[in-house]
Amino acid sequence: MIEQTPVFRLSVDDHLMIAHSLPGEYFGAAQQLHGATLALTATFERQGLNEHGVVMDIGLAHQLLAAVLEPLRHQNLDEHTDFAEKISTTEVICHHIALQVAEALPQAHGLQAVEVAAEENPQARASVRLVLQ
Amino acid sequence: MIEQTPVFRLSVDDHLMIAHSLPGEYFGAAQQLHGATLALTATFERQGLNEHGVVMDIGLAHQLLAAVLEPLRHQNLDEHTDFAEKISTTEVICHHIALQVAEALPQAHGLQAVEVAAEENPQARASVRLVLQ
Amino acid sequence: MIEQTPVFRLSVDDHLMIAHSLPGEYFGAAQQLHGATLALTATFERQGLNEHGVVMDIGLAHQLLAAVLEPLRHQNLDEHTDFAEKISTTEVICHHIALQVAEALPQAHGLQAVEVAAEENPQARASVRLVLQ
Amino acid sequence: MIEQTPVFRLSVDDHLMIAHSLPGEYFGAAQQLHGATLALTATFERQGLNEHGVVMDIGLAHQLLAAVLEPLRHQNLDEHTDFAEKISTTEVICHHIALQVAEALPQAHGLQAVEVAAEENPQARASVRLVLQ
Amino acid sequence: MIEQTPVFRLSVDDHLMIAHSLPGEYFGAAQQLHGATLALTATFERQGLNEHGVVMDIGLAHQLLAAVLEPLRHQNLDEHTDFAEKISTTEVICHHIALQVAEALPQAHGLQAVEVAAEENPQARASVRLVLQ
Amino acid sequence: MIEQTPVFRLSVDDHLMIAHSLPGEYFGAAQQLHGATLALTATFERQGLNEHGVVMDIGLAHQLLAAVLEPLRHQNLDEHTDFAEKISTTEVICHHIALQVAEALPQAHGLQAVEVAAEENPQARASVRLVLQ
Repeated sequence: MIEQTPVFRLSVDDHLMIAHSLPGEYFGAAQQLHGATLALTATFERQGLNEHGVVMDIGLAHQLLAAVLEPLRHQNLDEHTDFAEKISTTEVICHHIALQVAEALPQAHGLQAVEVAAEENPQARASVRLVLQ
Repeated sequence: MIEQTPVFRLSVDDHLMIAHSLPGEYFGAAQQLHGATLALTATFERQGLNEHGVVMDIGLAHQLLAAVLEPLRHQNLDEHTDFAEKISTTEVICHHIALQVAEALPQAHGLQAVEVAAEENPQARASVRLVLQ
Repeated sequence: MIEQTPVFRLSVDDHLMIAHSLPGEYFGAAQQLHGATLALTATFERQGLNEHGVVMDIGLAHQLLAAVLEPLRHQNLDEHTDFAEKISTTEVICHHIALQVAEALPQAHGLQAVEVAAEENPQARASVRLVLQ
Repeated sequence: MIEQTPVFRLSVDDHLMIAHSLPGEYFGAAQQLHGATLALTATFERQGLNEHGVVMDIGLAHQLLAAVLEPLRHQNLDEHTDFAEKISTTEVICHHIALQVAEALPQAHGLQAVEVAAEENPQARASVRLVLQ
Repeated sequence: MIEQTPVFRLSVDDHLMIAHSLPGEYFGAAQQLHGATLALTATFERQGLNEHGVVMDIGLAHQLLAAVLEPLRHQNLDEHTDFAEKISTTEVICHHIALQVAEALPQAHGLQAVEVAAEENPQARASVRLVLQ
Repeated sequence: MIEQTPVFRLSVDDHLMIAHSLPGEYFGAAQQLHGATLALTATFERQGLNEHGVVMDIGLAHQLLAAVLEPLRHQNLDEHTDFAEKISTTEVICHHIALQVAEALPQAHGLQAVEVAAEENPQARASVRLVLQ
């Protein structure tokens, strides 16, 4: 038997080019001021589809992600107020973006989760999954 | 402690090149007749492996997906009977394909879920996950 | 000995989602109205770099490509005036885009070639190279 | 409401180039001695982050995976002791690697799952998810 | 001034999963019997387009490549007659495929070059370009 | 007629994560200190193959590229001596790497060109081609 109201996901991409450093011996050479292109994917998850047969408006999905990224584009995160008390690891940046995207969702979105993933180089990626309760 | 019978997944790819339009102001420019290449991935999920050490016969996985795609290849979905009462969004197309793949599975397949994902352009993807109960 | 003023290239990506049909038995099932996502790359080529150490302003490169694509986005090329007397194959679409991008280049660009490539599906690509004399 | 301690994932890539054959008519042409490049991704999953704001040390993640792959690189798995009683399908190879990576994790890693995925060709992938209890 | 009859290219993909070994200390660990998935691209190049507005029939391009690959699929190249006197490096395999594709072209193809490229692992590729005089 | 000694190419990948800023209004927001992951490909080109049937030793190709990248890894190029008098655009970084790779080639390499390409974000790439005379 196949379930009748399955889980759907919609993903949209954008990217960020930032400078930062990571504090402490734990991070080795990444303690030095360096940078990264973060190739980002935001994923929106919903049980069933809305009345238009989609997870959400794909244009809105792109806009929500872009709006959150705007104040971070071409920034040195070591001096950015949003990361003042934080270590700006790829995981923490994903979390920051996911929280802001989740908070910016319109009322009655019907979504059950938001994920943000970042490829920081061709051989490494991180992600976070926020369950919306 | 590591679980003894973990969940395995097998994914196979194919693609579809279709025309369609999406009705209503909600869809903006996509209300116009346009088209898409859908780069499709069907994923089969199973707890543990079958007696041959696989999720399922990979050749069969490719065939099941291709058989479902055959009547949709090079079609205008606005005039296709399978989408007569439906909005042919990427999400709905994924659902259509996933349902047909799930129904075409051989008896005693042992699978617990089928997923179908589609990349509709280099910056957007949708997917559906059907739990087989 | 290594040459002193080598050839540099800059590439930027965008995409197009169009409907079309291709006339004549030669095209088999593609005679039917169907569609495609064209994942596009425009490449600009120059011997040596400009005074800013680049092939050209990357923002301008993105804008030139986007401006050419704008009137084609979400269109049925069978009814588009730019393709009235043409077969809208991937090759012909690339040529159309490359010509328009080349003609829109600012004066004194210093470029020696413009290329446009399109991936029409995960297993096929076409491209054209315009030498600017 | 957004959950306070979400699930994070970190993925690192490596690859393996092996020969093998798969026994029995079930495998068709793959019964013959052939080979594969397995493009591998190991994913580490954790609820919340460690004191450094990461899932785990990314350098260690790369090392753990590489250490498990080392004895398999450029091998014929038909003659490799680790696969003596096994069918070396992509699924079984993923399982082998995931188990060894999981067992090599340092004490108090805080991880809740390890996944290993392998792309065996541009149109097929397999994976396994080990829940660490 | 923009040239009037530019060079066009059409590329199609396929893949091969083979075993082989490479003789001599020069090849290090690759002297051992191992294997590879070769993700292959055949590119056909032409000045101007044919009467159908394409470089060549894309279906024929796929068929020509597949026909050449057929006798190599799931083979151990160490025992394959086509590589009896040859070292089956990625470069040599590309050359073998390119020559056979070029020889199988129909009369009056109008092509000026055939290229074959192979990705042997996620971090290495080889290719050959045959000029057709 | 097919040429007898065609041109072969071998490509190997690596990457760099750097901080930098680009001076002058021309660069807009990139004037600010930011960063990038440069996904790099070095390509070696040769007419015909060496006595081992390859363009060059692939292990050496990886080593040459890695050796050139080593002093640039996790650096702020604004403070790096190699870029003291230079604007560290992607094009200039590619040129710097290509020149150093070319100069580090062993005697009698038989190569006719070295190319270095960098993807700076998912939608933009630059490259340089050094002809070795």
